[in-house]
This record gives sequence, structure tokens and C-alpha cells, in this order.
Amino acid sequence: MHQVDIATLRETHPDHWTRAAAIRVLAMDAVQAANSGHPGMPMGMADVATVLYEKHLKFDAAAPDWPDRDRFILSAGHGSMLIYALLHLTGYEQMTLDQIKNFRQLHSITAGHPENFLVNGVETTTGPLGQGLANSVGFAMAEEILRARFGKKVVDHRTWVIAGDGCLMEGISHEAIGLAGKQKLSKLTVFWDDNDISIDGRVSLSDVTDQKARFEAAGWDVLSCDGHDPADIDAAIEKAKASDKPVLIACKTTIGFGAPNKQDTAKAHGSPLGPDEIAATREVYGWPHAPFEIPADVKSQWEEIGRRGATARAEWQSRFDELSDNRKALFARMQAGEAPKKLASTIRALKKQISEGQPKVATRKASEMVLEVVNPAMPETVGGSADLTGSNNTMTADLGIFDADNRKGRYVHYGIREHGMAAAMNGMALHGGVRPYGGTFLCFTDYARGAMRLSALMGAPVVYVMTHDSIGLGEDGPTHQPVEHLAICRATPNTWVFRPADTVETAEAWELALTSEKTPSVLALSRQGLPTVRTEHKTKNLTAQGAYVLAEAEGKRQAILMATGSEVEIAMKARDLLQAEGIGTRVVSMPCMELFAQQDEKYRRRVLPAGPVRVAVEAAVRQGWDRWLLGERGREQKAGFIGMEGFGASAPAPELYERFGITAEAVAEKAKALL
Amino acid sequence: MHQVDIATLRETHPDHWTRAAAIRVLAMDAVQAANSGHPGMPMGMADVATVLYEKHLKFDAAAPDWPDRDRFILSAGHGSMLIYALLHLTGYEQMTLDQIKNFRQLHSITAGHPENFLVNGVETTTGPLGQGLANSVGFAMAEEILRARFGKKVVDHRTWVIAGDGCLMEGISHEAIGLAGKQKLSKLTVFWDDNDISIDGRVSLSDVTDQKARFEAAGWDVLSCDGHDPADIDAAIEKAKASDKPVLIACKTTIGFGAPNKQDTAKAHGSPLGPDEIAATREVYGWPHAPFEIPADVKSQWEEIGRRGATARAEWQSRFDELSDNRKALFARMQAGEAPKKLASTIRALKKQISEGQPKVATRKASEMVLEVVNPAMPETVGGSADLTGSNNTMTADLGIFDADNRKGRYVHYGIREHGMAAAMNGMALHGGVRPYGGTFLCFTDYARGAMRLSALMGAPVVYVMTHDSIGLGEDGPTHQPVEHLAICRATPNTWVFRPADTVETAEAWELALTSEKTPSVLALSRQGLPTVRTEHKTKNLTAQGAYVLAEAEGKRQAILMATGSEVEIAMKARDLLQAEGIGTRVVSMPCMELFAQQDEKYRRRVLPAGPVRVAVEAAVRQGWDRWLLGERGREQKAGFIGMEGFGASAPAPELYERFGITAEAVAEKAKALL
Repeated sequence: MHQVDIATLRETHPDHWTRAAAIRVLAMDAVQAANSGHPGMPMGMADVATVLYEKHLKFDAAAPDWPDRDRFILSAGHGSMLIYALLHLTGYEQMTLDQIKNFRQLHSITAGHPENFLVNGVETTTGPLGQGLANSVGFAMAEEILRARFGKKVVDHRTWVIAGDGCLMEGISHEAIGLAGKQKLSKLTVFWDDNDISIDGRVSLSDVTDQKARFEAAGWDVLSCDGHDPADIDAAIEKAKASDKPVLIACKTTIGFGAPNKQDTAKAHGSPLGPDEIAATREVYGWPHAPFEIPADVKSQWEEIGRRGATARAEWQSRFDELSDNRKALFARMQAGEAPKKLASTIRALKKQISEGQPKVATRKASEMVLEVVNPAMPETVGGSADLTGSNNTMTADLGIFDADNRKGRYVHYGIREHGMAAAMNGMALHGGVRPYGGTFLCFTDYARGAMRLSALMGAPVVYVMTHDSIGLGEDGPTHQPVEHLAICRATPNTWVFRPADTVETAEAWELALTSEKTPSVLALSRQGLPTVRTEHKTKNLTAQGAYVLAEAEGKRQAILMATGSEVEIAMKARDLLQAEGIGTRVVSMPCMELFAQQDEKYRRRVLPAGPVRVAVEAAVRQGWDRWLLGERGREQKAGFIGMEGFGASAPAPELYERFGITAEAVAEKAKALL
Repeated sequence: MHQVDIATLRETHPDHWTRAAAIRVLAMDAVQAANSGHPGMPMGMADVATVLYEKHLKFDAAAPDWPDRDRFILSAGHGSMLIYALLHLTGYEQMTLDQIKNFRQLHSITAGHPENFLVNGVETTTGPLGQGLANSVGFAMAEEILRARFGKKVVDHRTWVIAGDGCLMEGISHEAIGLAGKQKLSKLTVFWDDNDISIDGRVSLSDVTDQKARFEAAGWDVLSCDGHDPADIDAAIEKAKASDKPVLIACKTTIGFGAPNKQDTAKAHGSPLGPDEIAATREVYGWPHAPFEIPADVKSQWEEIGRRGATARAEWQSRFDELSDNRKALFARMQAGEAPKKLASTIRALKKQISEGQPKVATRKASEMVLEVVNPAMPETVGGSADLTGSNNTMTADLGIFDADNRKGRYVHYGIREHGMAAAMNGMALHGGVRPYGGTFLCFTDYARGAMRLSALMGAPVVYVMTHDSIGLGEDGPTHQPVEHLAICRATPNTWVFRPADTVETAEAWELALTSEKTPSVLALSRQGLPTVRTEHKTKNLTAQGAYVLAEAEGKRQAILMATGSEVEIAMKARDLLQAEGIGTRVVSMPCMELFAQQDEKYRRRVLPAGPVRVAVEAAVRQGWDRWLLGERGREQKAGFIGMEGFGASAPAPELYERFGITAEAVAEKAKALL
């Protein structure tokens, strides 16, 4: 592809050039001031971004939260100065010049990589490559679902993405584009910053993939443009808008465009250009202004662009106001991420029914029972599974399948794409208006980790339905048996890890997960059947306290047994054994360590008083348990753990519990040995 | 693609049919007996596997460890009965009929998914989808490297893979095929079991990808065949062998081929067919024999196939015997995974030099200094990075770049493919003859987790060079700052997590990693410069003990400070502060918790005696530390932790350490408050 040169560009498109140059110099200057950052990408993609913001992106800088705005996602998050410059130039109130000057400094909002929780106009946190692209699939899906629900007068926007070679090499990109292609997400457009440079050097050092052919193979339309020629960019975008498929626009660009000695090399990627090169680049640009100085007329052109969407927003508001009060309230509630009032009573009713009926079911089945009553009450839920629907029990009868032919469907066949699913759910949650949950086996959190961490960092209250949560899955063997994954999830900040013991706790966990504002949840659920241990109905959500006394000691309290999930049954049986020998034994069910840790000391002491021996039982590694065994008034000499010390094995589950010594007898013996 | 029907197949290829049917019935019968497993895939791919084993795969059932055997990798590991049947039928001694009958039972080697550490002839552990495919790239790379080194008289074999739709949907497949395409791994052939069925139903429920076009886009040759027609399969394989690129053979198959009511549906995938369907299938197959009964003539045909490679092996042995003694010894040493004798002295010399010179360098740089002396001494190392070569410091001058034009190169530009890199390294380690290490940022263990877990499970002594190991990386911010990743790696069984404090410890960690037989290592290395703390030369590898007394208390020992990596410097400064106030303070450096946990109680007690207050400092979450703070003779009232409680932030590193309170002053204050 021919690339326009700067002299021609300046001559033929002087206004465009100046506006784009403003982005470029802010990027150079901010990276230089921080002595850290990535100037090359913003300099390479400034023309594309300028055309997009100027002519196509539906936004109003005065209203970053306008629900019907287009979403712009910088998947190549290291180029953060591109979006910070755009937000500053178009007049987002928060993005002052001081913020730009304090790029990558403590207490500024201009973090090294764009963070949605710091910056209005940053829709999602990017940096880990490919995530933004994969989020964008969820954004576009949420738009489709909400448009089908509320009509295009109220919901009708696009999702635009800038992705680099790194994004496209990451495996997650494969899962994302496959999902988008299958779902015909025609309002999703990805600009590929095709600059042929990665950190190690030319892309050809590590990759010969024909990206265009690859996207076509995944069901996308593919266009190309000179990523520096505004007319060519504009034409490509116009074509993209007319497609009935998701569109890749391959933008041939030069990294560090215009830096005379560093452009088109890896040197422009991730380091300041240095004062000399910056001065030389200013010459090339015809930009005589001081660092961080944007001429008033350029700024005012940009601010006009920032106001461009105000009319559309006013019109949207009028249309929105015409909705019925009920519809308006529903839209607002869903957008705000507030659960419906009836959720609480729905959960309570189910809990009562379960405590009375006392079914013995796997908690994955229990989860399905909860979803069967929750999904009809919460039209915002969007369920799915990474091709384990029957195993994860994530589907309920009322949902319908989300598909190109049925945008009202609320169940997504994500395919064998755990990472893509998790990232799409992040996108949906951040879009707002929907509340996504999705399932796979707990062991395959390994595949979804990159996105699960970002749920936590971004405060996206996604629900991960992770079934087959221990050696209790049996014959599939150690490749499928999580032993370290509870510890992994618990080690992650801002993540609630629920491991419910029965259907009642499962219902309580779901209630917490579905009312969470900023915290993702992992539901670790059993494959195998479990008895109801909460046989006495309590209206209160006991799981909300993280841990509670499930069964009190009879007689003098000599032992406290702690357990989660499928091992609560074992702890209860161990209690029977100990009580039969006159050893007063309390059982503490601990479905959520994180929430227990948040309780005040008085409550924690009531649950875990000093004195009795403590034995914890969980079919997983010990890491994470020492806090409750040795800390919280515990003592090493009086504490023991029954669980896994290594990987599992392939065999029927009951034999594995015997083989690894996770039995009521072993728990009782351990307790007695510590007395 | 037209598919041959069973009647025609039986008529036109009666012997082939019978041999393939033997696989099919063993799969049906074993899954039925276990009441668990996946019959559909072995039944679908039996014809392909039969042709491959009969005519193409270079192997000798009597010598599963023959170094120049072809490698067969069942990436669709749930179809484990396919390979167990093949191993049994061809006469692998270990794979008795009893093992087949005890499929998925405790103490049998026939686990639900094939496990390399249990079964001869199973080259790698599969089940987590896409991993085998991605391993195969490493197998093929190892073959190329060793062939370049030793010549094709000694190394000249192929890698064959069976992959399903699940493997190809997973993101890791994208990374794997991109790497293989770039590297022109022409001796790699992938059979795609194109049966159009996934667990949730037809593949079209979730995917419309044109897989053939996709592989072509990645630089592969693509062929197709009727996966049930032996002549067509054979012709495709012959063509594949002639290609100068990696080859995908799309094999159109029917899942559960021949099961009259379940074939071509998801019902054939993951459950026993049931006695009635099995009986009906036997009718279709014309197989009147009892469960697990293989007629003697069929077994003997298969055993002949199992002996087919004996001659080639004998010829190979003659050629091998002709090598010089030096070459033979080198080959044998590398194949056995034994480090050269001079490694120990090389490391010792470097340690001495460092203890004397006391440089202040980042441990990532220290790692490079180690590699600069190790790589020339260990020709079996193969280094690389997921496009962070300059940041991970993984390249040394002598390696040369591994490429289609330079198979002697020992450095791999893996591209932005953390997961693909990790899985390829697993394949290389399992192939034998090479010892792979590869780098990325510690935070992006998230992307590589699936393969890192398998390193541990499989006992593949891969070395993960994980730099930028804390908030100490500074400005890139929380998306790039690991806080939970040390805990994640430590939670994983059979994984050594090294976090060295200086160049000496880094050298010791490398020595352990490079001599490990069955345990992968994670080296967590700093971005920021660190002083030499091991200023007194010791020939002994102190890191091998996991933790040791770095600085003894002067006067009465009142406090023990524990730290790893970059925080050892902080602990040493805190010790100065405390000693200045007359508080005798020991500093324990703990570069590897796992190795410390393996020491005897006497040693552990010597390092961590009861009595003094304990403060641990690590710029990461506390999880994992309670064992050493509260356990091992510790007490809750006398223990404290200085580290991270949540995600980091974007700012220069020194400011972040201040901001999050990880300072010598804070450590000293904490210790004093506990006294």
C-alpha cells in the first residue's frame, strides 16, 4: 500500500494535519516529560483517530456517560497518550493539560495504560494485549441485546477498536474474532495499526500471518487504507459502516510517523524519543510551539469536534423521554447495574423451599435451580458457557439463544473460548445494561486468567460459574482437577470466591454476585451431589458474612472444623464422629474468605474464638488457609489441614477422596491428635 | 467432502477395516466399563490413526524411548482411548489389556486424559484443549535444532498431531500455528478431526471459521481427505511429507462413526454409548466378539505394525554408534537432561566474581549475566522471549536466532505469544535434548498459566524468566504490576518459584533450574537495580536450601526479617535501623519457599527459631507468607507483613514503594510495634 508522505499531507489536508499533529506532539512531549512511555503508536495512529473522532465517533465530550455513545477502545493500550490527547483536545473536563503533563505520575489519571476506573472516556482498561479487542466483542454484543430490547431509537451505537500487531498475535484475538464473526457483529469495527513493528523488531521476525485473510476466514469483512491519508481513512470507515459483518480496517501506518531517525523502527515504540529527535520531529511537522502548547485555534477546532455529538444527544434524550415510565425505569435500573427489588424475595423463597425439601444435588445443579428463578426476574442477565452448557448448568429455559437471528436471546454459546468469553463478559459489564455470567470448569480459570484479573482490576462485576471444582470431578483426572485454583482466585484482589456447600449457600452466593457493584465473583461449584446442610431456614444471607457457625458444639467446645463447598458435608460427618466421643465440635462453613475477612473483629472472634483446636478441610492446596488456622487467634500446635498436597488422579470421585485422605475419619483423627 | 460409508469401507478395505474396528470397539468397551469417557473421537479418528501407525509413523513398540522416533501427539486428549488402544494393539509392553479394562480407574495408567508421566508412548499430557497442538510446535522445533546439530543420520523424525475443533477454537492454537508457520516446521503434520461437533452441539452454534483458510493465512499447507477412506488418508499423508511447510490435513470424519443412533451428534462425544447402542454398533461393524476381545489374527497384524520400525531403529543405532565418542556422550547427556559437569564451576566462578565486584544491577540483568556464562557451557539451552527480548534480558551473544534459515540458532523470537511460548517450551523439554527457557513479564504468567500448570503436572523442567516482578516496574501501572502472581506460582504443585535478591542468588537459582529433572522453575526478576547482598563468597548454593540467614543479629536476637528479591535490600536497611536502636535483627533471605519447605525441621528451626518477632516483606500479596509468619514456630501476636493489599498504580517505582508503605522504615516500625 502506498503511503502518503508528510509534505503532501500537510499540503493537501492542512487542517487535518494540524489537528493530528496536536495529538502527536502531546504524545511525544508527555512521554518525554515522564521519561517513560510509548510515543510511536499515537504518532502512527493519530490520523486514523482524528478522522474517527472528527467525522464518525458518536460522542459528546460534555457527557462521557451518555448511554448511547459509541464506544472507542484502545486495545493497544500502551499507546495511552493517543486517547489522553483525544480526551484533552476534545474537551473532556477531567482531562486537563496538567493531567497530560503528569502522564504516568502518582495521583494523576493518566496512567501508563488507560484505566477505565480513572478516566471518563476510557471505556475499558487495556495494556495486556488483545484484551481490549476481546472486550469490544462484549461491548458490541451488549449493544445488540439492548437494541433488540429497547429499540434503536434508544440504543444504536457502534464499537470502534484500535488494535496493534501484539493484539492480533495474542491467542485471545483468535477467540474474540471467531466469536464476533459467528455473531455477525456488524457494528464492530477494528482498526489494525499495521506498522510492521513489534518490540523485538520487525513483525516478520516472529510472524508471517496474513492478517487480512485470517479475519476473512473468521467471517469478517476486511478493508484497507493508507493510515495517514484522511480521505482514504474516511472512505474505509464509510464502507465499514455499511457492512453486515464485523469489519477489520487494515491501516498501513508508520510507527513514530515523522520522527526522522526513529520512525519505522522498534526504537519509536516504548521509549521517549529524546529532546533532539523531538526537536527534529517538530521541524518535520511544522510545529513551532513549545512542549504541551496547543495553539488556541487548534484547540478550538478540536473542542468543536468534542461538541459535535451534542445535538444527537439532545435528540436521543427526547426519544428516551418518550418511553413509558416503566421502560425508562427499567432502562435506568439496568444501566445503573442495580438488581431488581424482587431479587431478594426470589432468593429467600428458594432458600426456604430448599431448607424444607433438603434435596441432595451438586452445587452446579443448585446453581441452575437458582438461575431458573433469577433469570426470569432479572432481564439483564446474559448467560453462557465455553461449550460446557450441560456440565456448567448455565442455561435456563427462558433465556433463548443469542444469535444473529435472535438478538433477544440471552444465552451465548461462546464456543471453546474461555479467555474470549471472560473478556467479552468484561466488555458487556463495562458497557452497562446487562449482567453477564459464564461457565467453564474451575481448572480452566487457567485459560481465562488474563481477563479474570482485569475484571477485578476494572471493577467489572462479572460472574464466573466454575464447576467441577475439585478432585470430586473424578475420572477426567488431574488435567481437569483444580487444586491450586481456589488459591489463585483468592490471591487476586477484589475478587469474591464463593464455594457454597449446598443449594442454600449457592442461592446466597448468587444473590451477592448479582448485586455486586464493583467486584467480580467466582462461583466454585461441585460436579458431585451434596446434601443440604442448611436445613433450618434463615432469611438472612449468611454467606454475606463469609463464614458462619453452621453447627454448634454440643457440650464443651473443643474443636472447630472449617470447610467450604463439598467438604462441609465431610466436616459435618467428622463432627458426628467427634461428638460421639464426647468431643464438642463446631462446624464453620466458610463460603467466602474475602467477605469473612471484611467482617469486624468481634464477629470473626465469635466464629473463630481462641482455644479450640482447628481443622480446615478443603480438597485443594493449603495456601490461603493458614490465615484462619494459624492466625485469627489460632495456634500452630492446635491447627491442622486436610486437603491436597499435589495434583489429583483419574478415578471415580469417592475413591479419590479416600486415596487423598479427605474423609470424615481423617478430619476427626486430625482433630483428636491436636487435642 | 464425500464420505465413504461403512459397507463400502468393509468391502473395499477389509483388513484396514478390521484393524480400525479393533480401536473402535476397545474405545466403546473401555468407556462403557468405566461408565465415563469419550468414545466418539476414537471412533471417528480410528481410520486416520490406523493408516498413520500402519504406514507412516516411525516407531518401535519395543523401544518407546528411541530418540529418533516420530512423535504422535493426541491434542484432543479426551479421546485418550484412541492412543491407549493403539499402544495396546501394537504391543507396548506396559499397555496390557488389563490396563484398558481399568480405564479411568485408580492406580491404572489409563487415565481419563493421556498422561506422559504414566504411559510410554504418550509424549505429552493433553486434555486442556489446544495444549498438545502447541506442544507439537516445540517438539518440531527441538527436532530441527537437534538435526542441525547432530545431522539427519541421527535426528530425522516427524511430529504428528490429532487436533479437534476444540483445539482449534482455543486461542493457544492461534499462537501455535502462527509460530509454526513462521518457522516453516515442515515436519509437523496436524490432522484436524473435522467432525463438526462440539459438546454444546454442532460447531456452527459457536463458530463459522474457515479453518483451512485460517491455516493457509498462517503460512501452512492445507490438505483435505475423507477421514474414513484409508487410500485418501494415505495420499494426503504422502503429500504432507513432501511439503516444505507445516501441514494441516482436514479429515472429514463422523464422530462416533458407526453408532447408528448417536454418530454425528454431541451424544457420542463424552458419555458411554450404552449397552444397546454398543451392541447395535457391533452389528454395523460386523464385530461379533465379546467386550475387550480382540481376535488373535487382528492383534497379530497390529503387533506386526508395532515391530515395523525395528529395522529402522537398528539402522539408526548403527549410524549412532558410528559417531565419535564425544558426540555420542554429548547426545546422551543432552538426551538425559543432565547438565554438563562444568556448569557448577561456571556458576561458582561467577558468584565469586560478583561477591567481590558487588555490582548494583537489576536481577533481570543479573540473569543475563548468568546466561552469558551458562549458554556457552550448555549447548542444550534454547532461549527466547515473547517479544520482550530487551526487557527480559534473555538473549546472549552466542545463541544466534533460530529461524528457517538458521536451524542452529538457539534463540527464538516467539512473538507476542506467551501461552504458545510456554507450551512450545513444554514440547521441547518433553522431546528431550534441549533445555528451553523463555521470558515475559511476571504479570503475564496470566496468559501462560494453562501451559505453566502443565509443565508442573508433566514434570517438564522448563525455565520461565519472568521479569518486572512487582510494582518496582513503575510507570506501566497496575495492568503490568504483578501482586498475586508469586502466590499463584507458589500455589501450583511441583513448581520452584525463585525470587533472587541479587546476582549471586540469581546465579544459584539458575543453577538449580538448569539441573532440575522434573520441576519447572519460575525466576521472578526485578526491573529495578538491586545491590549485591551476598558480599561474602560461598561455594555452596545457599538458594538450594530455599531460605537462609543472610545477616545475623548483633546482640540478642529480637527480630527476624524475611524477604525475597528486591525487598531483601529493604529488609537489610530495616535491620540497620533496628540494630541502631539496639534491637538484634536477623535477616532471612527466602529465594524459594518450596525448597525451604523441603528442608528438614532442624534446618528450618535454625533459620526460623521460636521467639523473635517476625516481619516478612515482599511487594506482593500476603497469601503464602502466613506459613512462615504464623507457622514454623511463629505466633500471630509477634508476626507482621509488609506488602501489597491490592493492585498497584502507575508512577515511578520509588514513589510507589513509598505510596504502598514498603520501606525500611515501615518494616522497622512494624518490628518494633510487635516487640
